[in-house]
Amino acid sequence: MEVKNIMLTAEEMPRQWYNILADIKMNPLLGPDGNPVTPDALAPVFPMNLIEQEVSTERWIDIPAEILDVYRIWRPTPLVRATALEKALDTPARIYFKNESVSPPGSHKPNTAVPQAYYNKIFGIKRITTETGAGQWGSALSFACAQFGLECKVFMVRISFDQKPYRKSMMEAWGGKCVPSPSPETKAGQDALAKNPKTPGSLGIAISEAVEAAVADQSGETRYSLGSVLNHVMLHQTVIGLEAKAQLTKVGAYPDVVIGCAGGGSNFAGLAFPFACDKINGKQVEIYPVEPAACPTLTKAPFVYDHGDTAGYTPLLPMHSLGHTFVPPPFHAGGLRYHGMAPTVSQLVDEGIVTPQAISQLDALKAGILFSRTEGIIPAPETTHALAGAIAEARKAREEGKAKVILVCFSGHGLLDLTAYAKYLAGDLTDFELSDEEIVKAEKAFADFPKPASLKSR
Amino acid sequence: MEVKNIMLTAEEMPRQWYNILADIKMNPLLGPDGNPVTPDALAPVFPMNLIEQEVSTERWIDIPAEILDVYRIWRPTPLVRATALEKALDTPARIYFKNESVSPPGSHKPNTAVPQAYYNKIFGIKRITTETGAGQWGSALSFACAQFGLECKVFMVRISFDQKPYRKSMMEAWGGKCVPSPSPETKAGQDALAKNPKTPGSLGIAISEAVEAAVADQSGETRYSLGSVLNHVMLHQTVIGLEAKAQLTKVGAYPDVVIGCAGGGSNFAGLAFPFACDKINGKQVEIYPVEPAACPTLTKAPFVYDHGDTAGYTPLLPMHSLGHTFVPPPFHAGGLRYHGMAPTVSQLVDEGIVTPQAISQLDALKAGILFSRTEGIIPAPETTHALAGAIAEARKAREEGKAKVILVCFSGHGLLDLTAYAKYLAGDLTDFELSDEEIVKAEKAFADFPKPASLKSR
Repeated sequence: MEVKNIMLTAEEMPRQWYNILADIKMNPLLGPDGNPVTPDALAPVFPMNLIEQEVSTERWIDIPAEILDVYRIWRPTPLVRATALEKALDTPARIYFKNESVSPPGSHKPNTAVPQAYYNKIFGIKRITTETGAGQWGSALSFACAQFGLECKVFMVRISFDQKPYRKSMMEAWGGKCVPSPSPETKAGQDALAKNPKTPGSLGIAISEAVEAAVADQSGETRYSLGSVLNHVMLHQTVIGLEAKAQLTKVGAYPDVVIGCAGGGSNFAGLAFPFACDKINGKQVEIYPVEPAACPTLTKAPFVYDHGDTAGYTPLLPMHSLGHTFVPPPFHAGGLRYHGMAPTVSQLVDEGIVTPQAISQLDALKAGILFSRTEGIIPAPETTHALAGAIAEARKAREEGKAKVILVCFSGHGLLDLTAYAKYLAGDLTDFELSDEEIVKAEKAFADFPKPASLKSR
Repeated sequence: MEVKNIMLTAEEMPRQWYNILADIKMNPLLGPDGNPVTPDALAPVFPMNLIEQEVSTERWIDIPAEILDVYRIWRPTPLVRATALEKALDTPARIYFKNESVSPPGSHKPNTAVPQAYYNKIFGIKRITTETGAGQWGSALSFACAQFGLECKVFMVRISFDQKPYRKSMMEAWGGKCVPSPSPETKAGQDALAKNPKTPGSLGIAISEAVEAAVADQSGETRYSLGSVLNHVMLHQTVIGLEAKAQLTKVGAYPDVVIGCAGGGSNFAGLAFPFACDKINGKQVEIYPVEPAACPTLTKAPFVYDHGDTAGYTPLLPMHSLGHTFVPPPFHAGGLRYHGMAPTVSQLVDEGIVTPQAISQLDALKAGILFSRTEGIIPAPETTHALAGAIAEARKAREEGKAKVILVCFSGHGLLDLTAYAKYLAGDLTDFELSDEEIVKAEKAFADFPKPASLKSR
């Protein structure tokens, strides 16, 4: 029987994460004074063991046994040959998807939530604050905190909080606390509410609130956790790509194309970085981060220094950004509604090692329906962007008559995002087009900041 | 490293289902005339190949390759050692749960939805009707019909239709159609609406509607599908127990106790029948179906002949029943809100081969929270009943100092049933107690029907 699900045993699970900082050069984070940020300056926000990971340039970092124990709840995840989808597309390409939706919260997010909870725990931290957009990250961190006996407080973007009450219940089932953002609990929240009491909120505001709430705790027992963007988050997610590589090796394959959706960058990086490493070292492979056309951070916005949050609490990050005050239009892939992009992913784009694509919401959901009715699993709206990219590649392969190997990250299922499908199927969904004027206007947010240097890693 | 997830390879997946009719004696189904039903009489409702399975007494029935192909989307499912739960309970027992929640619709239901769609397809059927309570079955059949290019029409109990709009979207994402029941589309629905325009509906009424809609199609291209109760449904589900047995064998274990929740009986039967077979043949093993105390079919209702639906369209089934007009109180485990029970499960209870237990809603959800915060996966409200049973056994094992092996079916996740958790955590959930008077009154529904004979299989 042909193997559809390529599995790894628990023994074959990676024992180390891959750190791309060993293979690329990066601009430093800058503080308010315009100088590089020191680890000490980040200490009120993150525990020092995670800060050390953030700045490490070691290529391989051991995964502690306690983290492997929790990973084993759902890892290794299956690598699945999308045979039914291939047949529907009549393509000579082989499509493999790495199924990260099998985790308890339903996405790749716990790959970093678990290590972050663990490192906070052993550093003596008692509670973690964070923000969440659509709710994937807040759920994942609540799940992880339950595993290590930590308190978890989640500031959830208000529009999602109202639209997705199930997400709050999910966090609470794991013992987390979830409040809508902006909230009256922080100065950043109060300011946002004063400006517009009916604001739908944004990830940028929610980040500001969570950082402020962590730093404000005088006991020193609270820290903040971020679900994407930062180097250590990308590091933890590389377990995805390392597993996928081992699984492809089992069937004697190596991808011609690697595809992941990109919001803050973490699931894309998780799948792609181990292959980007190969590419930096001379291997031939195409790597595509796929972003929403309505929030075109990589395809339309420049590589600049900008804040990660709206209030400007974070250091300046060298990244592709639409401006830290940009509020993306209300499309359904909440996890991709972020003004910036992971500095590591931004750097790879800037160097031409990975090549971004943008997909419209309607094309993405169309791909989601085709995938649901062939491979059977209903993808998260975020994930549909990657699938649309993979489907386009498979169609291209048919035109070219090439038996390509396409590897795509199935970052999460859509069982808590079914409203998007209902609206799409009812013909009640539209695309959002950003005018160039809107983009130029949003980018004024970083006009006065320093510019990152152009670096080349190869 | 200790193995937490015991996996099977695709090659190790069972190639045959186990048919318990080879090992137990059953009372026949009776028609309106009081005589045993012939296969021909069922032909307007089911395709003949499934009717043949329904009455087969062959012990092993081959799983066709086309079904194995679709099973491979999510099967073999993991057997997981609940190490974190064991630790929290400080028990010497080993608890293994068979994780059926990893299927695309999130439960064990596609184990039979896929074969049912397949057999209908090869019999030349174009569309299938069915009913659904909480939505698990309707989702699973929509998923399965998409795999074989069949139309699917689901009558969903109105109260769930209104409370769980996501379920409808899920069915639609897979191409299914979903209408609230009672509907004006059938006579059974019209009658129910005339009696009470605001009725919340019931599984019994929805079954009547789906059967009527199938039979009414003059083209002969429509059939009805049932997600539980019938022999062929139990048959298909035995893939669960057969896999679990092979997985336990890998770690040199055999269960002392086997536990599943029981509504119509299918997930319980799926896990338990291969072990019941061993027990009939002399092996020592305790087997517990766990039902909700608010719908105590096995623990309080007698073994009788009764209809499977409210309108009385179905033959008389020899089963434990609360009466076919019984409407269970509105507790959250919608999949367990059925007045009857699979005849095979009922027969095993009657013979003392399996021993039913009843659990209150609050105790069940308490177990669900403990499981969520230890093993990490949020169980469906139905599943929490089985987990409560397993937790009670593990506590008993601690008191007795016995290193028992407990095997429990994790029939589905609760990601689409989070309202139950939200209400439980808010202290907003109560138990439903049925008075003996209510039960006696409900049982009048079968007072005039023949009585099944007492049979013994060993």
